[in-house]
Amino acid sequence: MEKIKNKKSSAIRFNLDDGLSPDKESKKRMLSDMVGIYLDNDARKNMISTKDILVYEFYELGLPENPAHIAYGTTILYPGKVGDEYFMTKGHFHSLLETAEIYSCIKGEGYLLMEDPEGNVEIQEMKPGVSVYVPPRFAHRSINTSKTEPMISFFAFRADAGHDYGTIEDKGFRKLVIEREGKPAIIDNPKWNALKEG
Amino acid sequence: MEKIKNKKSSAIRFNLDDGLSPDKESKKRMLSDMVGIYLDNDARKNMISTKDILVYEFYELGLPENPAHIAYGTTILYPGKVGDEYFMTKGHFHSLLETAEIYSCIKGEGYLLMEDPEGNVEIQEMKPGVSVYVPPRFAHRSINTSKTEPMISFFAFRADAGHDYGTIEDKGFRKLVIEREGKPAIIDNPKWNALKEG
Repeated sequence: MEKIKNKKSSAIRFNLDDGLSPDKESKKRMLSDMVGIYLDNDARKNMISTKDILVYEFYELGLPENPAHIAYGTTILYPGKVGDEYFMTKGHFHSLLETAEIYSCIKGEGYLLMEDPEGNVEIQEMKPGVSVYVPPRFAHRSINTSKTEPMISFFAFRADAGHDYGTIEDKGFRKLVIEREGKPAIIDNPKWNALKEG
Repeated sequence: MEKIKNKKSSAIRFNLDDGLSPDKESKKRMLSDMVGIYLDNDARKNMISTKDILVYEFYELGLPENPAHIAYGTTILYPGKVGDEYFMTKGHFHSLLETAEIYSCIKGEGYLLMEDPEGNVEIQEMKPGVSVYVPPRFAHRSINTSKTEPMISFFAFRADAGHDYGTIEDKGFRKLVIEREGKPAIIDNPKWNALKEG
């Protein structure tokens, strides 16, 4: 194993009410960044025709990318919909596919949607205090089903796991979570695997 | 890497007020278990002469002990003192020394005390929202300095890291956190390394 460089501990503050840290700059994903992620791309474009919208933000603390370290931080996913589809994160596989992740919900409500390369789907309900274990090999995406509240999660994974966003951008998740008669419903994604198939 | 066995996600609930899970049995450390941990052993024995006292409890979720997985859970450290010394966890090194850990404080106040095999000491203040990064190679111990409130933390580490309690039981931590004039003070541990030296 690589020789360990940073021998110092650190303390990062996260506000448990809004999930934000006064110590670090968050990474922000705007609705303009979410190309090809939501089913209704026209609705997405209309929503940002005059002003862009912040969908979520999260922290990358820059820990050394080796298996000795644990990357961690918060994700703050804001409420909203694109057409009938709830605001969600892009979702990603780990580049090192055989690595797990923990998602602990601090505030809000929604789902953690997971999918492995063979198309096996897992979904877990998120609410405050629920810690979801994302098994190795599963891509994962947060979905906020609240009309008003951000969904705030604390995450932890091996610092060398890496992010593979491309696979999900290409083929999507097999399932979508949309609003039907005011409630969340899980449906098949009509575009799933579309690029792969044609 | 070992073939992954559990392909299922899971969701464990932790109550964010008291840190306890309705889904799993906690491991409990009683004051009678804390042999050789506190400086004033007579005070410890007197405290439990009629009835044992719960010092802390935590969760071991039984994830496969391989580097693909992340072990996680909560630690609930109750308020109290043994003589002048605040209630604290035993503390441990990881058996795989080159592995880090995250400690995120959910409730309460206190310290996370850390020490590497060369005797380098790190200490971080814990309060709600503070996430402490325990670097690889550092033993770590929680210390509750509140008079009334439990200190509740969420932890995450590589599932194969393992626990080495023996080294700390033998030599102690170099520093102690005790109460002086109603406030926490960090002092040298007069017994540090005693067994090793003689």
